[in-house]
Amino acid sequence: MAQLAADRRDVDFVLHEQFGIEQLSEHECFADFNAKTIDMIVSEARQLAIKELLPLMGEGDLEGCTFHDGQVKVPGSFHRAYDLFRKGGWIAMCEDTAWGGQGMPATVALAADNYFNAANYPFMLHNILAQGAGKLIERFGTELQKKLFLKNLYSGQWGGSMLLTEPDAGSDVGALTTKALPNGDGTYSITGNKIFISSGETDLVPNIIHPVLARIEGAPPGTAGISLFLVPKIWVNHDGSLGEPNDIICTGIEEKMGIHASPTCSMALGSRDICRGTLLGEENRGMRAMFVMMNRARLHVGMQGFSCASASYLNALAYARRRIQGKSPEASTDADPRVPIIEHPDVRRMLLTMKSFTEGMRSLLFYTGFMEDMARVAGSHGEKALYQGRIDILIPVAKGYVTDRAFEMCSLGVQILGGYGFTRDFPQEQLLRDCKITQIFEGTNGIQAMDLLGRKLGRDQGPFEELLQEAQKTVARAREVSALKGIARALEGNILKLKAVAGHLRKKLQSGDIPWAFAQAHPFLEVTGDTLTAWMLLWRALTAVQKLESASGKKDISFYEGQLRSAGFFMGSVLPVSLGRMEAILLDDRSVADMSDDLFGGR
Amino acid sequence: MAQLAADRRDVDFVLHEQFGIEQLSEHECFADFNAKTIDMIVSEARQLAIKELLPLMGEGDLEGCTFHDGQVKVPGSFHRAYDLFRKGGWIAMCEDTAWGGQGMPATVALAADNYFNAANYPFMLHNILAQGAGKLIERFGTELQKKLFLKNLYSGQWGGSMLLTEPDAGSDVGALTTKALPNGDGTYSITGNKIFISSGETDLVPNIIHPVLARIEGAPPGTAGISLFLVPKIWVNHDGSLGEPNDIICTGIEEKMGIHASPTCSMALGSRDICRGTLLGEENRGMRAMFVMMNRARLHVGMQGFSCASASYLNALAYARRRIQGKSPEASTDADPRVPIIEHPDVRRMLLTMKSFTEGMRSLLFYTGFMEDMARVAGSHGEKALYQGRIDILIPVAKGYVTDRAFEMCSLGVQILGGYGFTRDFPQEQLLRDCKITQIFEGTNGIQAMDLLGRKLGRDQGPFEELLQEAQKTVARAREVSALKGIARALEGNILKLKAVAGHLRKKLQSGDIPWAFAQAHPFLEVTGDTLTAWMLLWRALTAVQKLESASGKKDISFYEGQLRSAGFFMGSVLPVSLGRMEAILLDDRSVADMSDDLFGGR
Repeated sequence: MAQLAADRRDVDFVLHEQFGIEQLSEHECFADFNAKTIDMIVSEARQLAIKELLPLMGEGDLEGCTFHDGQVKVPGSFHRAYDLFRKGGWIAMCEDTAWGGQGMPATVALAADNYFNAANYPFMLHNILAQGAGKLIERFGTELQKKLFLKNLYSGQWGGSMLLTEPDAGSDVGALTTKALPNGDGTYSITGNKIFISSGETDLVPNIIHPVLARIEGAPPGTAGISLFLVPKIWVNHDGSLGEPNDIICTGIEEKMGIHASPTCSMALGSRDICRGTLLGEENRGMRAMFVMMNRARLHVGMQGFSCASASYLNALAYARRRIQGKSPEASTDADPRVPIIEHPDVRRMLLTMKSFTEGMRSLLFYTGFMEDMARVAGSHGEKALYQGRIDILIPVAKGYVTDRAFEMCSLGVQILGGYGFTRDFPQEQLLRDCKITQIFEGTNGIQAMDLLGRKLGRDQGPFEELLQEAQKTVARAREVSALKGIARALEGNILKLKAVAGHLRKKLQSGDIPWAFAQAHPFLEVTGDTLTAWMLLWRALTAVQKLESASGKKDISFYEGQLRSAGFFMGSVLPVSLGRMEAILLDDRSVADMSDDLFGGR
Repeated sequence: MAQLAADRRDVDFVLHEQFGIEQLSEHECFADFNAKTIDMIVSEARQLAIKELLPLMGEGDLEGCTFHDGQVKVPGSFHRAYDLFRKGGWIAMCEDTAWGGQGMPATVALAADNYFNAANYPFMLHNILAQGAGKLIERFGTELQKKLFLKNLYSGQWGGSMLLTEPDAGSDVGALTTKALPNGDGTYSITGNKIFISSGETDLVPNIIHPVLARIEGAPPGTAGISLFLVPKIWVNHDGSLGEPNDIICTGIEEKMGIHASPTCSMALGSRDICRGTLLGEENRGMRAMFVMMNRARLHVGMQGFSCASASYLNALAYARRRIQGKSPEASTDADPRVPIIEHPDVRRMLLTMKSFTEGMRSLLFYTGFMEDMARVAGSHGEKALYQGRIDILIPVAKGYVTDRAFEMCSLGVQILGGYGFTRDFPQEQLLRDCKITQIFEGTNGIQAMDLLGRKLGRDQGPFEELLQEAQKTVARAREVSALKGIARALEGNILKLKAVAGHLRKKLQSGDIPWAFAQAHPFLEVTGDTLTAWMLLWRALTAVQKLESASGKKDISFYEGQLRSAGFFMGSVLPVSLGRMEAILLDDRSVADMSDDLFGGR
């Protein structure tokens, strides 16, 4: 049977063989999550994803969402699936059990998320925001706010959203103009307009809790004057009962390239001057709250984009195995049989590209979750800081690099199917369209690149070096294995060069050559991502070599040998290109930095 | 005023300053096409494109095509535009004036096509096939066939199509099963099913002339037994009057990712056993006829994909100039003003990437057309062969490399607009969706890569070397100019390495290591394309430096300086990556070649 959505053997390999995730159960907070329980969770997630979510993906895309008179209808078939999903307890997998969460390790939740998002990413956007809004409340809310909202959000009884973007304040959040006026009774009157709000309105749930960024009258300009509010769609009385509808309405939904089954809403707050909200956290500290949440949200978006690639790879692979077309390149006579296209070298090149990136990126995302889990169970402040340092470097890569490469993989996934890939008869074209948004929202990938270079590397080179040091440890172990010597050396060359590139960029930043340095931010994100992905692949190959010693089943042996191929291909075909890109950064070309507006033409 | 669809200054630069296209008018067949006439043609094409075609692009995509009971309706607004287009004589720009063509140089037609396709590529698909079917008849038809069909096709009175692909014979054309039986009266009875037929049915024209590939009963298997037939939708009597409807019907149209306004038809021939056609050209020589036509068709597809990028760049540029967001990276206080996003280094990086690729690829496509024109006016057989040799190398690059990069540029064109780029409020997402098919049809880009490596380089290294020799001449001239010394040296390094790579691949092919060599076909296409694009950019920079000596207008000076930046950026940021890719080819990694089906996982 062809695997769908995600390759179970590979998911298990990363969880158990590469990272040994069950070691987390030695810590009290994860005591319930031994290997068997983890397996069960992944199996259940997979079952739900394949049986219930996957069949709705194409029809959800075709049906899309409709808007009429302030109401949004999501695809009809989503109602039953949403009910199954939320009752299964999948919305708040990692959250506090006291509030209805499952208390799962982040790494395990990512495995489940891989299945869910690969099976039906637009559907998943309906759930993620309830969890996100809840997490903000869990972290920053008063006891009353927690009591009123948290269980209903984590159980999916109610929905959540995140009202951040405004027409003139997209990437520049500090420019927002939505206003909050204290009413004197602890509530605020909020007025403003927000756009690009996923799940801002929906018929899936009876109430939606909207976290809203706004500026309290008289607050400073810029990000320093932004506060966070909770604005329920239907007011919630102190006894938990529902009150009047609040003055927050959806004024329309976007027509867009993909994620058609997820409504992207324009929201008007206070158009009748009676939109009420309560402050969440401290005055003027709204951005700080957002930043705390952002790491997790960005890792989620990385998983969303990656999952499109994960599904696209498996579809392309299954197609390439059954589609008969042309003869083997070594065929010499008319009598030679026609072969499945997987036999053609160029198709194999595309498949192996998809395989190696998919595997490497899966490990990279799971590793980021694993570091979150390790930070949580860390015994000392120093240990926690170490893991947090890694996470800070990994997040922009997990979001920016992974979604960039995922989009490229989805494009290959169309290409392998040829003309059929362009039709709606196969999921490939939808996966490509859906994946595109992951490069844009939750901070465009340009923003991610600047985060890595300016905010992370620019402030402190330590964590970056420490992470590369970890990679070096894998290299050192792999150099002891004769089958891996060559590829270990290749990766070592890249790591050394990446260190030089990072040092060079830091020097430029410190010397104040900001326009030049930031023009290199995205190339730097690319080469960092390539190197970390290569590290993951070498780590996998090393694990596979060790497992091969005692493996006996044909399927296992094939799997482990496939790991050596993925790593070999990546080191042989991708890393040299990455080295070239590092060379380009070191060349100090100033074309971008010195470019002035009028030289771009077009007038 | 922002330029739309294509940058007129740049189009003129390539035609007149880089290539001096008016020199063609010294030859009798192009005597009418002096500089002034060429300008007039480009102006008229631009006017028609911007005023009539561009406004229909978005609505054509939304409305799409409908199929009901064998009938296809194209977007309603296309009827008027089609009438204007065909009456303007734009369908057969380069074809023989004796049959109603305009006899234009190919280079000039490409400039017009750049405007048309950038303004509304799906609309253009309705025209291109009438020209293509006509060209086949002009080249291979009997006098009667020419008399009956040619003028009606070239004038757009009737439509054309191309029935090649079958469900089990896509890239493997030789596997087709459509049959032809001689009726004894010079006609054939044809039965079979074809898929993916652009404009197979339409309500734009009263008749469609379908060239059909089929196998005459008893013919050899494979491509050696394929013949070409003309099958009119409505039979055409010998006096030119219309007869009975023929037994060829559209059985459905594809739902697809893009080009919604172009119907992609499934066609049934002879389902009532009375589908009649006439042989076009010789028995069993159908594939030869197709190959003759293919160069032009592939260049056209390159222009289609490129035109999406051309429009996407200009839209992104105009947006980046007016969208105010964030402060300059060098801003230090709250009082610093917010700036247009073109001021942000990462946006500038994306724009300069789009600019340099767009300019380089425009020159590359026009150059290919220019070589066709030069071949046509060549004074000797040797001279003609020289140009034809260049064309043979250039075609897979103009189709495969250009559409691959064009798709990447369209993706950047979405990215620059952020969330807005993902919505249908801007053309960016449609350009990305439409562009995708150009990587697939008229031979997937994998097929193009194999054509370049196997059929072109593999048979004769001469033309490849000769083309690089031409590039070396530009390098030699540029090295004499102090401002260009550095970038000339950079390109020279790439050319030398590309020669080594080509030699290495040829050796592998000759030694019979086909699986390895063909796994490198696509990387080889990429590095060849990068090098040729860089050549074009250096040539442009050299031209610009010369022009700068006497330029006085601010706009001209900016344009020429912009050329130096494009070339500088490409040599400094793209060529090093390309060198890395060449390095990878020379590494002889065997991962793809040695990969076996079971190692891919997914089971």
